[in-house]
Amino acid sequence: MFTMSQNSWMPRSVLNDPCRPSWQAFVLSDAELALNLSPGGSKIILKYAGKDATQEYDPIHPPDAITTNLPPEKHLGPVAPDTVEKVQIVITDEEKARQARIAARPPLDEILNLHDFEAIARQVMAEKAWAYYSSAADDEITNRENHAAYHRPRILRDVTKVDWSTTILGHKSSMPLYITATALGKLGHPDGEMILTRAAAKHGVIQMIPTLASCSFDEIVDAAQPGQVQFFQLYVNKDRNITKRLVQHAEKRGIKGLFITVDAPQLGRREKDMRMKFEAEDPSEVSKTGSKGVDRSQGAARAISSFIDPGLNWNDLKWFKDITAMPLILKGVQCWEDALEAYDLNLAGVVLSNHGGRQLDFARSGIEILVEVVEKLKEKRGLTFPNEQFQLFVDGGVRRATDVLKAVALGATAVGVGRPFLYAYSSYGPEGMDKALQILHDEFEMNLRLLGAPTIRDVVPEMVDASNIHSHLVAVPGDRLYDSNYESMQHATLRELKPKL
Amino acid sequence: MFTMSQNSWMPRSVLNDPCRPSWQAFVLSDAELALNLSPGGSKIILKYAGKDATQEYDPIHPPDAITTNLPPEKHLGPVAPDTVEKVQIVITDEEKARQARIAARPPLDEILNLHDFEAIARQVMAEKAWAYYSSAADDEITNRENHAAYHRPRILRDVTKVDWSTTILGHKSSMPLYITATALGKLGHPDGEMILTRAAAKHGVIQMIPTLASCSFDEIVDAAQPGQVQFFQLYVNKDRNITKRLVQHAEKRGIKGLFITVDAPQLGRREKDMRMKFEAEDPSEVSKTGSKGVDRSQGAARAISSFIDPGLNWNDLKWFKDITAMPLILKGVQCWEDALEAYDLNLAGVVLSNHGGRQLDFARSGIEILVEVVEKLKEKRGLTFPNEQFQLFVDGGVRRATDVLKAVALGATAVGVGRPFLYAYSSYGPEGMDKALQILHDEFEMNLRLLGAPTIRDVVPEMVDASNIHSHLVAVPGDRLYDSNYESMQHATLRELKPKL
Amino acid sequence: MFTMSQNSWMPRSVLNDPCRPSWQAFVLSDAELALNLSPGGSKIILKYAGKDATQEYDPIHPPDAITTNLPPEKHLGPVAPDTVEKVQIVITDEEKARQARIAARPPLDEILNLHDFEAIARQVMAEKAWAYYSSAADDEITNRENHAAYHRPRILRDVTKVDWSTTILGHKSSMPLYITATALGKLGHPDGEMILTRAAAKHGVIQMIPTLASCSFDEIVDAAQPGQVQFFQLYVNKDRNITKRLVQHAEKRGIKGLFITVDAPQLGRREKDMRMKFEAEDPSEVSKTGSKGVDRSQGAARAISSFIDPGLNWNDLKWFKDITAMPLILKGVQCWEDALEAYDLNLAGVVLSNHGGRQLDFARSGIEILVEVVEKLKEKRGLTFPNEQFQLFVDGGVRRATDVLKAVALGATAVGVGRPFLYAYSSYGPEGMDKALQILHDEFEMNLRLLGAPTIRDVVPEMVDASNIHSHLVAVPGDRLYDSNYESMQHATLRELKPKL
Amino acid sequence: MFTMSQNSWMPRSVLNDPCRPSWQAFVLSDAELALNLSPGGSKIILKYAGKDATQEYDPIHPPDAITTNLPPEKHLGPVAPDTVEKVQIVITDEEKARQARIAARPPLDEILNLHDFEAIARQVMAEKAWAYYSSAADDEITNRENHAAYHRPRILRDVTKVDWSTTILGHKSSMPLYITATALGKLGHPDGEMILTRAAAKHGVIQMIPTLASCSFDEIVDAAQPGQVQFFQLYVNKDRNITKRLVQHAEKRGIKGLFITVDAPQLGRREKDMRMKFEAEDPSEVSKTGSKGVDRSQGAARAISSFIDPGLNWNDLKWFKDITAMPLILKGVQCWEDALEAYDLNLAGVVLSNHGGRQLDFARSGIEILVEVVEKLKEKRGLTFPNEQFQLFVDGGVRRATDVLKAVALGATAVGVGRPFLYAYSSYGPEGMDKALQILHDEFEMNLRLLGAPTIRDVVPEMVDASNIHSHLVAVPGDRLYDSNYESMQHATLRELKPKL
Repeated sequence: MFTMSQNSWMPRSVLNDPCRPSWQAFVLSDAELALNLSPGGSKIILKYAGKDATQEYDPIHPPDAITTNLPPEKHLGPVAPDTVEKVQIVITDEEKARQARIAARPPLDEILNLHDFEAIARQVMAEKAWAYYSSAADDEITNRENHAAYHRPRILRDVTKVDWSTTILGHKSSMPLYITATALGKLGHPDGEMILTRAAAKHGVIQMIPTLASCSFDEIVDAAQPGQVQFFQLYVNKDRNITKRLVQHAEKRGIKGLFITVDAPQLGRREKDMRMKFEAEDPSEVSKTGSKGVDRSQGAARAISSFIDPGLNWNDLKWFKDITAMPLILKGVQCWEDALEAYDLNLAGVVLSNHGGRQLDFARSGIEILVEVVEKLKEKRGLTFPNEQFQLFVDGGVRRATDVLKAVALGATAVGVGRPFLYAYSSYGPEGMDKALQILHDEFEMNLRLLGAPTIRDVVPEMVDASNIHSHLVAVPGDRLYDSNYESMQHATLRELKPKL
Repeated sequence: MFTMSQNSWMPRSVLNDPCRPSWQAFVLSDAELALNLSPGGSKIILKYAGKDATQEYDPIHPPDAITTNLPPEKHLGPVAPDTVEKVQIVITDEEKARQARIAARPPLDEILNLHDFEAIARQVMAEKAWAYYSSAADDEITNRENHAAYHRPRILRDVTKVDWSTTILGHKSSMPLYITATALGKLGHPDGEMILTRAAAKHGVIQMIPTLASCSFDEIVDAAQPGQVQFFQLYVNKDRNITKRLVQHAEKRGIKGLFITVDAPQLGRREKDMRMKFEAEDPSEVSKTGSKGVDRSQGAARAISSFIDPGLNWNDLKWFKDITAMPLILKGVQCWEDALEAYDLNLAGVVLSNHGGRQLDFARSGIEILVEVVEKLKEKRGLTFPNEQFQLFVDGGVRRATDVLKAVALGATAVGVGRPFLYAYSSYGPEGMDKALQILHDEFEMNLRLLGAPTIRDVVPEMVDASNIHSHLVAVPGDRLYDSNYESMQHATLRELKPKL
Repeated sequence: MFTMSQNSWMPRSVLNDPCRPSWQAFVLSDAELALNLSPGGSKIILKYAGKDATQEYDPIHPPDAITTNLPPEKHLGPVAPDTVEKVQIVITDEEKARQARIAARPPLDEILNLHDFEAIARQVMAEKAWAYYSSAADDEITNRENHAAYHRPRILRDVTKVDWSTTILGHKSSMPLYITATALGKLGHPDGEMILTRAAAKHGVIQMIPTLASCSFDEIVDAAQPGQVQFFQLYVNKDRNITKRLVQHAEKRGIKGLFITVDAPQLGRREKDMRMKFEAEDPSEVSKTGSKGVDRSQGAARAISSFIDPGLNWNDLKWFKDITAMPLILKGVQCWEDALEAYDLNLAGVVLSNHGGRQLDFARSGIEILVEVVEKLKEKRGLTFPNEQFQLFVDGGVRRATDVLKAVALGATAVGVGRPFLYAYSSYGPEGMDKALQILHDEFEMNLRLLGAPTIRDVVPEMVDASNIHSHLVAVPGDRLYDSNYESMQHATLRELKPKL
Repeated sequence: MFTMSQNSWMPRSVLNDPCRPSWQAFVLSDAELALNLSPGGSKIILKYAGKDATQEYDPIHPPDAITTNLPPEKHLGPVAPDTVEKVQIVITDEEKARQARIAARPPLDEILNLHDFEAIARQVMAEKAWAYYSSAADDEITNRENHAAYHRPRILRDVTKVDWSTTILGHKSSMPLYITATALGKLGHPDGEMILTRAAAKHGVIQMIPTLASCSFDEIVDAAQPGQVQFFQLYVNKDRNITKRLVQHAEKRGIKGLFITVDAPQLGRREKDMRMKFEAEDPSEVSKTGSKGVDRSQGAARAISSFIDPGLNWNDLKWFKDITAMPLILKGVQCWEDALEAYDLNLAGVVLSNHGGRQLDFARSGIEILVEVVEKLKEKRGLTFPNEQFQLFVDGGVRRATDVLKAVALGATAVGVGRPFLYAYSSYGPEGMDKALQILHDEFEMNLRLLGAPTIRDVVPEMVDASNIHSHLVAVPGDRLYDSNYESMQHATLRELKPKL
């Protein structure tokens, strides 16, 4: 339960969540901090003041948000639950329609690929959640950049047994992919990131726990099976003490790799997400406030990210080596120069990524950067890939095992998959996530056979034609007058009847 | 007639089909095998148990499916036809509508090109049949890859007489194309592949008989005219004895070339086909079963292909040379390295193909592979093409004589055409197939004249500009699933009013 | 007046046309020839037997069709007009709707560019006429290939006076373009090609008279002003005597250049045109006849072209030099090898063309061939272009003066424009044609100024970036916000009525 | 107030405008000049003769149009305001609908980017104004050419403080962009260009005052804050005395740079604008007049530009140096040869521009020219960019800070932004303009952080991949028959309900 007064927040989940064995209640006395934490700012706080605001608060704020980010002296102490006025949940017509759509989902057996989850999720998720998950930077050019390499399969190899398992940072993975970090997992399902944890255990893949999870870090670790490998994705806090506490706690809890996000000194402008905030508000009121009012225009992404340190730089890496023995990987490298620097600093690897298209628009796709990095690190340092000492990862835009296998052929150790899994459990819960991983297993089996590659090690550069990967080929606009005059040829048509479709 | 009990199948066509002089009735006692043979699995068998299931069974199972694939000890013996309960055929509204569409087909004279057949077939075929014929792998990227070369015609050559005949593996063909193997021909017409046989005779082209025909191999051979040349396409069975029996039987019956399929250790995921299976089922029931029920998600393609041996490899080729004297051609080569290997093993040729886009998605088109193979085999072995000793074939995506002539100019001996012929007879029966070949003759005549090439031998590399063929840039089809999922960003909009336009 | 009996045709225009000072009446006794001449074949002749069929016959057959192509012994003599039964012209609803659309044309002042004429013509022309004019080969790929070069204008040049006149084969032309030959001009307007002649005189441009004009050759020459320059386009007849008679008659009448069409040994399959033939027929009847009936599937294009000699070859050129002193130009050259051959034979020039996309599909655009020819003829013979001794022309796809100027910059002497002028007079009659040329004058003035080129001679290769002209290309996702904001230009539209489609 | 009689115009703004401290009333006695000034020509003058025509006149004519362009002897003297008949303003239904749309604008807070302003402006502007602002040349190919470079961001740089200010011609600017000159600012808002002046002051950017402003030059200068930097854009008049007067007046008033437009010896054909003129007229009347009537087809652009001297050339530049000490910049350079010439003449810089796509169609984008100029000026003169002595500017198509930063990375000093600001104040007045600049500030901050560039000087060529900028990649048309036959794959769909969208 979570209450707000003029200057207080209290999470209900802190009280009731069975995943959290120990907790500490508190109330914010610092309105400024509340503003930072809340996308709606003080206005929202006023709106819910003294009421139970858990439903609004919960997916956006992990239960450890306050313990992690707020100094103890700001905690006001526990709330007496029965003193809190309940917020009456009104089921709107829109919500009713959404519930009807949920009831009308096709059975899970009819889901054939990861695209299908996305199609269903778009229909059944709450609009705000869909907006946050699906949004990307600016004009979303980068987000839509596509898989441009082509396959050159081999034939007549014995593929009776095919094996698509591999190792990532020395740990066994049943596929050359991992569940990458994505924020606010409870927007899609109340169990949030723990769904990913459990599915990862079942299917033998590795989960990367996000800093901005809706579940607390400990909840997610506790949800793991004994021996289950997890990584941790880190946004570095301006207050290095908080970061140090997080990192050392992660190491203590058995995390096997620290992925430091380096492409997000500030979270990107994601206008689809930003626009959603307005529509959720009372428009007449917004209208009056105008540009002079409180700035509620930044969307969930920026609301939750103000703590990220834009001052993070190469000099900080030595400090990380001092505070932890976990392998360090930079997440968000976008050119060979920086990959080389990471290698020279003896890091364990880099994730070549454009942050799912959510940060700098017109940034290049991970697979394009991969080709450049492999070529240059061979030229400059004589490296070949995949490489145990310095591993390359890629993420973004993956929907098929073929996407993964192209990256592997070109030198990646593994590929991160994020949104598709969110869509899977947002539309079907834990069983959706289970199915998503099963689909990928099926696709890997099929594709290794069709490639003539019995194992992941047989997926080699010669199997991919990436010669065209650097040409982005933005289409010059057509000549609309000419085009609209051109009368399209027509098929033979039936005489009287309407066509089937 | 074909009956099913809990553990029995019996094809009606085995009893009544006039094409089959001799047959042997039997009943399956092996439910597991039945499951392998039937796309619906045991559930379907239950549904039709003890009833006449011929209509469902016939197009999917050739009459020799059981004799060929089932050891004699599993045959239970003949069924007494009058003990079998008839399945009441209910004409659904949907079927009535389809019949009306069939009646409304335009007269055959109005069919101007092979695209037209496809347009009509899509309207008049049963949905399941259309799904099977038209489906391709994954996102169907490869299936839609296009004819990218451009013509450079010559002028002022005497083209009063033009001759587009050629020879294929030493046998006369009236055009530089052959009817390639496609499965389940009865889905389009009850006479199935025999329609192709008869049209091939009439027009002087060569038919390649598929392993997965709906008609039996002998029916198809028997339908041929004396002296008519036929090839045989082979899926290699895990049980080499079955394969040996098939191959030697083919040779004995006069087959002139053995095309061993090497790009299908497992038949591809064809989701359009897979999705159709669900829609044919009772959705409420499926809904309840969920992912734990019987797996009916694989579509016709995988249902009929479980016998294919994924262990087939280069070492098997020696064995083939031992059991047959027919010329051996590998069907499904997709890179120069494998074509070179085939040449070095003294095979008669290779078919450069991506299996009609039905196997590995993002595989390259046959014509693109052709350019690579011609260049590399010249570089490595000094070969020039077309070449009598080692012939190159291409298939996939052909709709026009110009498509064929581009391949011929670039070095192919001939081109395989499959789906367009299925569509021709599926929409108009034997006369449709007749018309399809006539259209191609007309187009060849016209195009040789316009190219300034009196014969096929005058169609030379200089007539084609293929410089752009490796950049997939020519109208690469979009990824429709990805695109349709992508939610376009939206502008700010007016609040209540309709937009001006 | 024109009558048909079982074996007779007689053109009314032969009797009444004021343009023809002398004529000779005759009746065909040769049914076979009639079939060649008539797209409908004997069936059509039967339909109209003994009636006045002028309306059907006139646009398809020039008045000299019979005198030119039929030996005198086949002429039966004049018809007594009052013995001929009139065909009752029934105004169909469709025709009424078309007349209403004609009445709703926007005033000519609102026509801003050549695209506008096409948009209106499409609406107001008879369907058959539109089908013939707009159709192209096969999939019409070539027809739609686009203007791909980019301008590099110069600045700060005195362009107070700009002059876009030039000389073509030594004759003054007010613009670097000519009216190229197009067939069947009366489909668009009863005055047919004479409209072009008169507009050419008024605007100082040169008209190329087509072999397949609807007006007779002499009508077109007679329509010219004294001293007006005309060229003649020639389809070479299998009967060289007919060709000789035509050529020498042309020279005698003052024609200044003979453009021999070399890209059409047979007229292309133009399916839009072919499909129209069926729709004009009674479908039930067609349905019955099926593929065995008379072949009426070839459309106007092939109906009128059976006389063209596919045996024409390089050796014939000497013969042409013997029978005429007119400059000889090959129309339809599509690669540098043939252009070089033409130069070596001392011809006056070549037209680089794909025949408006109506012949070989996937043929390259004229401007692309131009770049290749200029480069290779410089390399092989040291030529530079524009060149007085050997002139290069281009046609196809021109809609703007910028299209023309690109070709001129790259080395063309002038550019042929065909369809846009047909559309201009088909929609607005002679005034439309007048306006079309005026629009081009306006565009030339504007564009020379903006290019910083006071005269045509200042339009030089450096002003065009054609580096990309050989790549036939494609596309990454567009910027959706930008695109959706861009308000597409609109055609001139009808005022009140709904568009035809 | 402005009155017209058969031969008189009088601007009301001359009388009432508070910005003009002194004025001189006059009446035109020269009908020819009036025709030049008025898009409607004498017809319009007749229509409004003797009435108050201010509403029509005002946005098209700056208050100093007459004083600047008309010799004093043509001025007839002041009008007695009460003798002038008022034109009755009738509020049409269309205008009422527009007013309703204005009332329905979303609150300014919901405007997230510059595209949004354009979307709203399109809805709420008067049609004529929208047509003028949004129109471009010919087929508007150039206008739509896109931002084709890709980013290569750097990571792990301290971007706590980022600073996107720079200097332009030695003057401080808060961003690397300036407000470029655009004509007829009152079409969007009665305060016209003064809105830009005030916003420029507030946000520390530089405004370039246009020759064809709706406000007078002095009004705009007077609207500036003390010390505020302004540039002046010059169309050179055929009468050099007028130009001299303008330039020296500008210098006296403190203008810091003279941008001489060199790409517009004649204003381009902007057909969207031209088409609008017709629709504003009585169509029946136009219909009668036809092509012989007064030419009202040229749109606002050409109506206001007849004074521009097409004879302007390189020799004139010496004269400019003689009459002014202001830095001279050529606006509209489109190839390296002309940029080099400008450098060799010791000018202060060039604006690489295609005039917003409004002049020569198929001209290249500014950013493409930039790459060429930087490369060639390095090769020919050893220059590097950005360069204090010879500054490169770019304009056209900018909608995002990323667009600006690409140009800066490639060597531009700053980028001109025009239309987006017009759209901003046309839809929201001064507050819209304020918001537009604020959005750009936000985007610069975000993007510098994401690029890892603390200052503008850290935005270097290596951060941009412009290798593809010269390929314009015009899409080859698809094969429509093939495409329309291809049955698109379908997502899993809900069973009964309609999809959300």
